[in-house]
Amino acid sequence: MPVGTKATVKSLDPRDLEGLGAEIILANTYHLAMRPGSELVKRMGGLHKWMNWKGPILTDSGGFQVFSLKANTKITDDGVEFQSHLNGDKHFFSPERAIQIQEELGADIIMAFDECAPAGVDEAYARKAMNRTHAWAQRCLAAKTRDDQALFPIVQGSHFKNLREESAKFMASLGTHGIAIGGVSVGEGFEQKFYAVDCAIPFLPKDKPRYLMGVGTPDDILEAVDRGIDMFDCVLATRLARHKAFWDLDGRHDVSNEKFKFDDSPLCPEVPHYASRDFSKSYLRHLVMENELLGIRLLTLHNIAFLFHLMQQIRYHIQAGSFPSFKRDFLARFHHDSTAPGPDPFEG
Amino acid sequence: MPVGTKATVKSLDPRDLEGLGAEIILANTYHLAMRPGSELVKRMGGLHKWMNWKGPILTDSGGFQVFSLKANTKITDDGVEFQSHLNGDKHFFSPERAIQIQEELGADIIMAFDECAPAGVDEAYARKAMNRTHAWAQRCLAAKTRDDQALFPIVQGSHFKNLREESAKFMASLGTHGIAIGGVSVGEGFEQKFYAVDCAIPFLPKDKPRYLMGVGTPDDILEAVDRGIDMFDCVLATRLARHKAFWDLDGRHDVSNEKFKFDDSPLCPEVPHYASRDFSKSYLRHLVMENELLGIRLLTLHNIAFLFHLMQQIRYHIQAGSFPSFKRDFLARFHHDSTAPGPDPFEG
Repeated sequence: MPVGTKATVKSLDPRDLEGLGAEIILANTYHLAMRPGSELVKRMGGLHKWMNWKGPILTDSGGFQVFSLKANTKITDDGVEFQSHLNGDKHFFSPERAIQIQEELGADIIMAFDECAPAGVDEAYARKAMNRTHAWAQRCLAAKTRDDQALFPIVQGSHFKNLREESAKFMASLGTHGIAIGGVSVGEGFEQKFYAVDCAIPFLPKDKPRYLMGVGTPDDILEAVDRGIDMFDCVLATRLARHKAFWDLDGRHDVSNEKFKFDDSPLCPEVPHYASRDFSKSYLRHLVMENELLGIRLLTLHNIAFLFHLMQQIRYHIQAGSFPSFKRDFLARFHHDSTAPGPDPFEG
Repeated sequence: MPVGTKATVKSLDPRDLEGLGAEIILANTYHLAMRPGSELVKRMGGLHKWMNWKGPILTDSGGFQVFSLKANTKITDDGVEFQSHLNGDKHFFSPERAIQIQEELGADIIMAFDECAPAGVDEAYARKAMNRTHAWAQRCLAAKTRDDQALFPIVQGSHFKNLREESAKFMASLGTHGIAIGGVSVGEGFEQKFYAVDCAIPFLPKDKPRYLMGVGTPDDILEAVDRGIDMFDCVLATRLARHKAFWDLDGRHDVSNEKFKFDDSPLCPEVPHYASRDFSKSYLRHLVMENELLGIRLLTLHNIAFLFHLMQQIRYHIQAGSFPSFKRDFLARFHHDSTAPGPDPFEG
């Protein structure tokens, strides 16, 4: 899912997303609640009409952002009191409030409000956050008034096998249309991230979509699919573009690199999109060196197209029975993207 | 002609320009010569291939930019020695060099190197600049080696009737495929601008395109067409977008205005483009308030679509014989756009 934090996938319009073949996009409850406010979006007819995006939308619950705020955050079983990162205004998010905001925004899939523990907490902390997340998921389901929105709860439990297992079982028991795994990509390493996934996966229903939040890089996506994950969201495709970076089959590159000055080859001819095929690295380098907006736009289009193409190939190889060799060959060439930036909840 | 100063119409890709119905775009000799250099563009196959734009391109000669440089510029009959506004590097532009650069860039219409006098000069200054411009036009024609590029000379003469007349006659005598009127929109007022046009127009061939450089606003375009002008270029459509501004039939507006916060009407439903019709002012306001690139992009698309739609209406009404009443009615509603910014040669 391309991420449209503030009700726009940065630099792209809905026709661009259609051209990419986007089937669903994500928007952010915290950011939209802070500005312009969900009441405005509701008054303008809801997110779909306001953005002019006719396809499905998923809104996260704001939990990840609120729990990333460092200063003056007060957490109780009732909810979280916090100050806006924009102007310091005081706000209060509870499970009920998160649902109210998401009903006003009007996405198709909405997320339960969860406590997202940071990486490296001890078991007592992780258990307390998990229990709260479970209670909040039940309160979210009870607070829900619209029947045209699917609510996904979020498995927590940090890096503890017993907690991840317990949380997965609990969320599976709620009978929702899909389930997310959260509390990953919060600063932990590659091994720990997939350990958390491995612990939860066996206890999630096989016939419902599993959504791994905040993932990820091409290599993370391959690893996650291999473990049975169906849905992803990540700002990386759009953010890398703003940092002049693009993926091709050999990994990640900085298009401003001097070596591309006279390079008339396209970004990645294997990807069936005009941004990937029809412009030379030389031209892209010129655009980013001159801070031309078209540079960001074309890199954004390409990076998303790259991930969509990867997903298409994954689907093909799963059906053809050749996924293991495809994964091995792709990763052998791509390498592990160890330079991927961590999530920045306030940049989008 | 939408302006693509640095080989990109800011924020738009070639498919966007096709979607707008752009028949020709402009690129800038001075800016591209400074960075990345016309040699690079030539090595990459020329502007069309490099930008991936299959339609016609016009490059200006760099005269307007070079004569806008304030410091350390040395003008002789031979040419102009100047320092790059980017890094102070010394350069020398002559008629021959301007043609060489434009042949390397490879546009379809190229411009003669001219001396563009600032507004308000005295007659002696204006005559000297005009005579130099005439001599340079002849040298440009002599220096030209490619037969697939049309060279347009540029009428000068500042605000002097006799000089504009003399310059128009001289340029008409050169037998080129088209002729431009330059030295307007250089800081002079509305009356003086069209006085310069009025003095030159009677002496230009009727059967060849007349190009008024650096114009303009919707009202300027109507006035100029009324006087027999065929071609225009102006950065205003793209620059206004970066300043959060858009045109509709009632004039120019700032979309960040508080009054648009809950306005669910589109920018201008009369203009047949999705950017003009499919997004509310409320959404556009949100995008520009959040500094989202999509705001600039949609305003750019709309502003260009607005000018293209105006040109289409002008053509229709000329053929239907109703141009005078169309012009009167349009201007009565639109008002004179007295807040239009002057040209900034180094912004694009």
